[in-house]
Order: sequence, then C-alpha cells, then structure tokens
Amino acid sequence: MSKIQIYDTTLRDGTQAEDVHLSTEDKVRIARKLDTLGIDYIEGGWPGSNPTDQRFFQEIQNYALNHSRVVSFGSTHSTKKTPENDPNLDALIKSRTKAITIFGKTWDVHVKDALRTTQERNLEIIYNSVGFLRPRVEELFFDAEHFFDGFKANKEFALACLGRAMEGGADILVLCDTNGGTTPMELCRIIQEVQASLPEARLGIHAHNDSETAVANSLLAVDLGAVQVQGTINGYGERCGNANLCSIIPSLELKMGYTCLPENNLSLLTSTSHFVAEVANIGAFHRQPFVGKSAFAHKGGVHVSAVRKNPRTYEHIVPEEVGNKQRILLSDLAGQSNILFKARQYGFQLDKDDPFVLDLLSKLKDLESQGYEYAVAEASFELLLNRTLGRARKYFTLDSYRVLESKSDKKDQPFSEATVMVRVGGLQEHTAATGKGPVNALDSALRKALEKFYPTLAEMHLVDFKVRVFAINDSGTYSGTASRVRVLIESADHNAQWVTVGVSFNIIEASRQALEDSLNYKLFKDDQAKLTKAIKEAEQV
Amino acid sequence: MSKIQIYDTTLRDGTQAEDVHLSTEDKVRIARKLDTLGIDYIEGGWPGSNPTDQRFFQEIQNYALNHSRVVSFGSTHSTKKTPENDPNLDALIKSRTKAITIFGKTWDVHVKDALRTTQERNLEIIYNSVGFLRPRVEELFFDAEHFFDGFKANKEFALACLGRAMEGGADILVLCDTNGGTTPMELCRIIQEVQASLPEARLGIHAHNDSETAVANSLLAVDLGAVQVQGTINGYGERCGNANLCSIIPSLELKMGYTCLPENNLSLLTSTSHFVAEVANIGAFHRQPFVGKSAFAHKGGVHVSAVRKNPRTYEHIVPEEVGNKQRILLSDLAGQSNILFKARQYGFQLDKDDPFVLDLLSKLKDLESQGYEYAVAEASFELLLNRTLGRARKYFTLDSYRVLESKSDKKDQPFSEATVMVRVGGLQEHTAATGKGPVNALDSALRKALEKFYPTLAEMHLVDFKVRVFAINDSGTYSGTASRVRVLIESADHNAQWVTVGVSFNIIEASRQALEDSLNYKLFKDDQAKLTKAIKEAEQV
Repeated sequence: MSKIQIYDTTLRDGTQAEDVHLSTEDKVRIARKLDTLGIDYIEGGWPGSNPTDQRFFQEIQNYALNHSRVVSFGSTHSTKKTPENDPNLDALIKSRTKAITIFGKTWDVHVKDALRTTQERNLEIIYNSVGFLRPRVEELFFDAEHFFDGFKANKEFALACLGRAMEGGADILVLCDTNGGTTPMELCRIIQEVQASLPEARLGIHAHNDSETAVANSLLAVDLGAVQVQGTINGYGERCGNANLCSIIPSLELKMGYTCLPENNLSLLTSTSHFVAEVANIGAFHRQPFVGKSAFAHKGGVHVSAVRKNPRTYEHIVPEEVGNKQRILLSDLAGQSNILFKARQYGFQLDKDDPFVLDLLSKLKDLESQGYEYAVAEASFELLLNRTLGRARKYFTLDSYRVLESKSDKKDQPFSEATVMVRVGGLQEHTAATGKGPVNALDSALRKALEKFYPTLAEMHLVDFKVRVFAINDSGTYSGTASRVRVLIESADHNAQWVTVGVSFNIIEASRQALEDSLNYKLFKDDQAKLTKAIKEAEQV
Repeated sequence: MSKIQIYDTTLRDGTQAEDVHLSTEDKVRIARKLDTLGIDYIEGGWPGSNPTDQRFFQEIQNYALNHSRVVSFGSTHSTKKTPENDPNLDALIKSRTKAITIFGKTWDVHVKDALRTTQERNLEIIYNSVGFLRPRVEELFFDAEHFFDGFKANKEFALACLGRAMEGGADILVLCDTNGGTTPMELCRIIQEVQASLPEARLGIHAHNDSETAVANSLLAVDLGAVQVQGTINGYGERCGNANLCSIIPSLELKMGYTCLPENNLSLLTSTSHFVAEVANIGAFHRQPFVGKSAFAHKGGVHVSAVRKNPRTYEHIVPEEVGNKQRILLSDLAGQSNILFKARQYGFQLDKDDPFVLDLLSKLKDLESQGYEYAVAEASFELLLNRTLGRARKYFTLDSYRVLESKSDKKDQPFSEATVMVRVGGLQEHTAATGKGPVNALDSALRKALEKFYPTLAEMHLVDFKVRVFAINDSGTYSGTASRVRVLIESADHNAQWVTVGVSFNIIEASRQALEDSLNYKLFKDDQAKLTKAIKEAEQV
C-alpha cells in the first residue's frame, strides 16, 4: 500500500482562524498529541514573523517526539535582501528543525502588486532561497502560494516558479489553493498539466475550504499522484478553514487503499479531534464527518431498525475504525468495555459482570449526560473509579462555603472574599481568604484550611484553568448566562500534572468541584506513592 | 447559460438532523423564504409517514408561491400491495402537489434484507409505482436510494432499477449517495457508466456529507451532465448532513457558468441561510463557506494589507454577490490604517493625523495588551469608537454591585444573589435579584434596574456566553485561578446580533463589563435607528 505523507498545519494556518488563539504551551500539547496520532509533519509556525512561534521551536526541543517531524515555515527572501542576510531565512535555520517549508509567490499579480518586483526577479528569489536552504536542512518543501489562481492567470510563469524551486532542490512542490476557490474540475485539469510539464516533480496539495471542496480536492490530488497532503485538525484555518485532515486521512486509508498513519492509529482520530477542540476552546462541530458526535447517530425509525440489523445499511464505514461510535439517539451508552479498559490502566483487573463495573457505568452515564468530560479530566475519573471501588480515603469534607464579590466606584478593582468550613476527621477548620477573583479566593481559603492537616498541599500549584460554556440540552439552544459551565483545572507538583473537572449551572460551584478533586488527587497520589515505596522496601528485606 | 434545477429537501431530509425539529409553521415560513430566493423545488415532507408533514401540504396551499414548486416525497408501494390500494401512494396524491418524488431500492442487499423480496419483484414495484403516478402528476422524479452502493454491489441490478423507472415515465432519475461514502473518483466513474448504459436519461444528484465531499460530488455530477441538484440549506441533514445548497448554488453560478436562481437573487443567499438557522434554532456555523460570518474575514497583517489593495488576492469571489461582506479583523496589531478602515465602516471619515485616531490607537493598544479581543467583539469596539468620538450617550452608571454565593451541605445547589446600584440621569435605582449562578444573578439584577428606564431592553436576550482563561503575560506561564479571564457575550434582539467583551482577573467583573457593553449597545443601536429614520422622514418632506 502506497504511503501518503500527512502534513499538519494546525499550529500555523489553523491559528489564522478567527476564533483560534494558541499559547506556546497549547501548541506543545497539540504537537505531542499529533505525534501520538502519528502525523508525519507538524508545521509549528512562522518563526520569522512572531515571538510566540519562535518560543514554540525552542520549547518543543525539550520533548522527544516518536514519529513526527517538526517543520518551520517561512517565505522566500525579501526582494531587497540576499539569502545570506535575510532575517526570515535566518529565523528558519535558527528554529533547528529537520524540515523546512518555504513559500513563494507563483501568481503574477501578487509578484507585481505585493512584492512590487519583476517576474524574473521572483524566479531568482525562489531559486536562491531554496538553494540556500537546501544544504542546511534534511527535508525541504516548496509551498507554491496561490498556485491554481496563478496558473489560470499566467500558466507559463506559474510553471516556471515550480521549475525553479525544483532546480533549487525542493523535495516536494506543494500546490496551494490559497483562496480556496478552485473547483474539483479545474484542480484536476491543472494538476494534470503540471505533471505533463514537470514529470519528475513530487507534488503536494494544500487546499482551503472556501468552496466547501477542500477535502475532495485533496483526495483528487492524491488520486492523480500527489504524495503529500497538508491540512489541519478539524479543518481550522483562516476564513472557511483548511482541508480537514480528520476527513482526508480516513478516506485515504479506508476507501482509497493508501497508508497515512502508523498501523492501528486511525482509531485515535476522534479523540485527537476532540483534544484539539478542547485546547483551542472551540465547541465541537457535531455534524463533522467521521469524528463528529452526530456522524453515526441515527434518529429516523426506519434507519434505526435497519442499522441494528446491519450497520452498513446507513453507515459508510465502521465508526470504531476512526475511534467514533454509533449512537442510537436517546440511548447513549457509556461503554462497559471502555471502563474495563480504563480500569486496567489504573491497575484494576475487573470482570464485566462485576457489580462495581455496573455501578460505575450508571454513575458515568449520568455524569456524562450532565456534561462531565472524563476523556480530558483523567484525574477526576481515576478518583471516581477508586471511590466507587472504595479505595480512596475521604481526606476532607467541605461543609460550607461562601464567596462575596463587591465593587463600588470608589475602588477600581472588585473585592473577592471566600469563607470555608472544612472538616478533617473530627476536627473542624473555619477560615477566610481574599483573592484575585472569586475562584482564586475560594482556592486560597481551601488551601489555608487544609495545609494545616496536609502540608504536602503546599507543593502543588494550578497550571491552567479552562472554562467552557455549553448548551444545557442537546437541542443546541443556548440560554445565555444561565447555561451550564464546565471547568477544567490543571494542577502540578514537582513530578506530575493532572486535570480535574467540575460541572454546574454556576461557575463558582463548578470550580469548587474541580478544585476539590484537584486537592484530593494530590493527596491520593501521595498516598499511592508512599504505598508503592513501602511495598518495594518490604520486598527488599 | 444552461439551467440547473435546484431541489431543496431542508423540510424533509434536513429534519433528520440530530438537532433540527421543525413545526408545520416553521416549515411554512422556510418554504416561503425559499420561494423568495427562487428555489425550483421544495420537498415538503413524506405525507405517508407522519401527520406534521400531511398538515404542511394542506397549509402551504393557502399561500401563492411565486417561483417554487412544492414536492411531496414517498416510497414505492409496499411489497404486499398494488399501487391502487397502497396508502403511501394515496397520501402522495392527496398532498395535491404538482411534482412528486418517489424513492425505490436499488441496492440488492436492501431488497433482500429490508424489503425481504426478490430482485424481480422490486423491479416490478418500481415500474408499477412510477407508472401509476405518471398520469396523476405534472412532474415525477425517481429517487434511486443507495444508488452508488447498489451499483458497486450489483451493477446490473442497480442499472435495471433505473431502467424500469425510466420506462414507467420518471422525468428525472436522481442518483442518491444515501450513506455519503462515495469518493469523488467513484462517483464520476459510476455516473459515466450510467450515462453509457442509459444515454437518454436525465439525471439528478442527491449527496450526503459523511465523507465531507457532498458539495464536490454534486458539482462533479453537474459537470458530467446532471440537470438537478438536491440538497439542503446550510447542509442540515441526518448524520453529517446533506449536500449544502448554500455552497453549491454560488459555485454553479459564479464559477461554472450555470443558472440556478432567478436573476439577481444570488445575493439573497446569506440572509436565507441565516433565516433558516434562526427558525431551526441552530447556532450559525461561522466558518461556513460563502455565507458564514468568517467566510471573508481577514486577520493576519500580510493578508489585511493585500486585501485592501486588491480583495481578489485573498477572496475567491466578491462577497456581496452572495449577500455577504468582507470583515477586517482587528487582530493583535492595532494599526492606524485598520482603525481608519473600521471607522469608515461605521460612517466616520477620519484623517490619520486626527488626534482622536491617535487617542483611540493608544487606548486600543493598551486594551488589547490586557486581553480585550475586538476582532470578535465588534459591538464593544463600535461603542469604544463612538465614546472616543464623544458620540455615545452615557445611558447609565453602575455605581456598585455585590454578588453573594453561598453553599452549605444542607442544600444541593448553591445560592446566588446580586445587588446593583445604578444611576440614570439624576435617578438612582437600588435592587436585587437571584439567578442560576453569579453572572446570571448580576444580569437579572441589572436588567431589573434598567428596564424601568429603557423598556426596549426587554427585547434583547443573551445568545451565547464564552469564557477564556489566559496567561497574564506573554511568557506563557499561567497562574492558575488568578489568571486573567476574557468573557465574550453574544446578544440578540429581533433584528440583530452583537458580541461584547470584558476582561479582568475576576470572572464576575469581566462578565459585568461585557453585560454592561451589551446593554449599552442595544440602547445605542436603537438610538441610531431612530436617528436614521428621522433623517429619512425629513428628506421626504
């Protein structure tokens, strides 16, 4: 089976989307997830253009990726510079990636209006830039910006740009439909003409979705011989987005017989899609093909009964192949086998008829229907599992709390104060603290009360705090400030990081749940470590 | 220019979507809007299957449609009946539409497993059903269910089904990709084989989006000679949806040279899309091609300056052709020329050396460095602009507020109460309200205090509430629950939607800012509308 290179640009083109903003840490988390999925190339950013992207390339060097190559992206050198003194090319080299993508103009209009130079000079710039980078990097891709529009405007010039990039030593010529306006018919015709003119060229495709044909255009390009597909997770990208890798990869693998990901990794697709949406803090698009919540959801009576007899009657693929699942609406089951699998990860060998499993299953179903998201908040899930199995101590009880927010025009900043009443064993502690905002005040008061009993809590700190507001019901209707709120809190101590979750109509209450879980998890984890150490010592005796 | 028939099935297939529920009244409203747009055929429902659909066909007869033909949809007769005594065919005739679409099985597996009959009997049922309806209706379409899957499984049988429908007198044979799994390459190959086998047939295409290729598949079918395209507004439909007419129509008209809608009607597309989303009560998909809010939004600095010089550089069509518009997003870099451009949109002709511009620029830089995101919150920006220019009234002053959150173990839900003290002119109002959570309580108290003075505030409601927690500084380090919080609030009244922003260390305070902006914007907008009306009336005198 022929291998197609998958090139992800979520961290670069994806961040051009109107509502996507990623910090350096977000980018690192996504890159590591894409590495686990087995994406071949991860375009990390444009180091010559902004400091966030430069920091990413430094930061990512602290992680050993198993599969992916990180790629830095930049433009051909400035018309007024040479490759040797161009700061943009210099930034590419300083990013120390093994692969570089360099983009150049191929549309005559842009050369004239944007670069304000001649066609000859543009060809020279392409050749010089590619040639300069060639000996300095293992893999080098040339991104032909606006190629399809350029071809339609001035075929000879567009082809000449590709030719010069090849002569300079580019490994792959990536044909970009930058404006996303190319129809499938035009795209096929143009690719065939490129192939006739440059039969030795290895081609890539980079499509945008302005005509809602980016996925089809990418598949057609591969069918005609392209060896690399560029796109983003969930199709995030400027305007209408980039070609959606979550749709392209499964069609290439399941329908067209190509290999994209390492063996057995396709089933990670749905969880990867959700992870990226969570980190980008964008609501999942339920109708999204392959990985969306509705992608294999059956509503109509005829369909439901047919699908139960034979899923193929109304499902184009087996949902599990991409890590998704069939949903018969109104009976959404949190899978029993999922629980067994997870429990095994935490060291419990359970039987599927174990009453604990059935208990946990019913608890989980109830909690997930309320909006708890355990796929992300694994620490909360681990606590739930251990509590259900009776293996987690009750470290403390929060009997009551109160948060007071006030602001008058005399003071610029509002005043936040929290009081808590906690019980540890038979001892009660009633205390108060102020903070920057109500959640911070509650956090401070809780720690103040508990550190007396559990000094190790001083080792932990909060790393991230995420809030997601979502519809109360499944009908997609929001109810404004009375919507349900999910809070995810990421905490860390010197040797671990963990995420906990809370859900409520009330953001303070949701935060309280996630904070309590976070403190409990720290104490639970410390106990587990002590236990492991004790067992090891006993064995050595 | 060749005419392509546009066939809308939003009212039938569209309602199979997980979150779409339409009453008879909703369906009538949508049908009339589609008529205004100039859709050729409006499939109203399956009268044989449910009473809502039957009522629709009665109700719609009370309206004279200018352009559209209403179509009723149903299956071939039951295996145990004849056309004459089949209640489903009878319901089709009783719907009294001038056009009927009848669907039949063309996949051998379905004939065996679902109909539990022989292939010969199925061919007979198709011929008899079509033949029975032929003299009773003006136009008759045969919907070949699962045609592409059927063709791949048993080509001879699938083609025989089409042949019998033609012999029975069907005007158009609609090839359905019911499961949405057909790749563009397969689709083209199969259509060409159908044409070779049935050269006289007039073909239609009905695609589903499970592979994210429904739009491309529809365009390719037309390119090969299909004369009718079936789809839905916004692509609503079961699982991943149907082929999206909002993307197909503009590509056919603007790129492929076909006629679909009556002259000059294409510019109604964006408003039609929004109308249907409103009636279906589904949040607009901002990244939707052609008609989405982000479809012509430009963020990156390079793109913005290029687009200003020549929009074609990053826009595949002129947005106004489909009734949409270009949006220049105010991204992190608040440049002087960006502000001038935005100000012009709001009706201000400013000079770049105007002290107001310099003042606004410094304010914006400061606010954006704090985390205010005006690219999204355009209403807040418009208020800021007008305030800086001294053109927005101070509608009210919030002198002070207090929010109290409390929870004891006795009660399951926490209690939220807000008090506010507002001043309008010389009058002060001091009131209190409870709510589901602190922000909801504050919202309720504010409205309670202000509606006395401004009754139109009762027209507005909150549509969406988004929270983003982010690092205080650019170093990428979070500081947990003391992180900065950005709240975006989307509000709406009967004729507009607007987004406002608030930023603070404190989520309540950030929400307060966004809520205040939202209320102010409503009042400001109402004043502007009154002013415009007054000027128009004065001009008429």
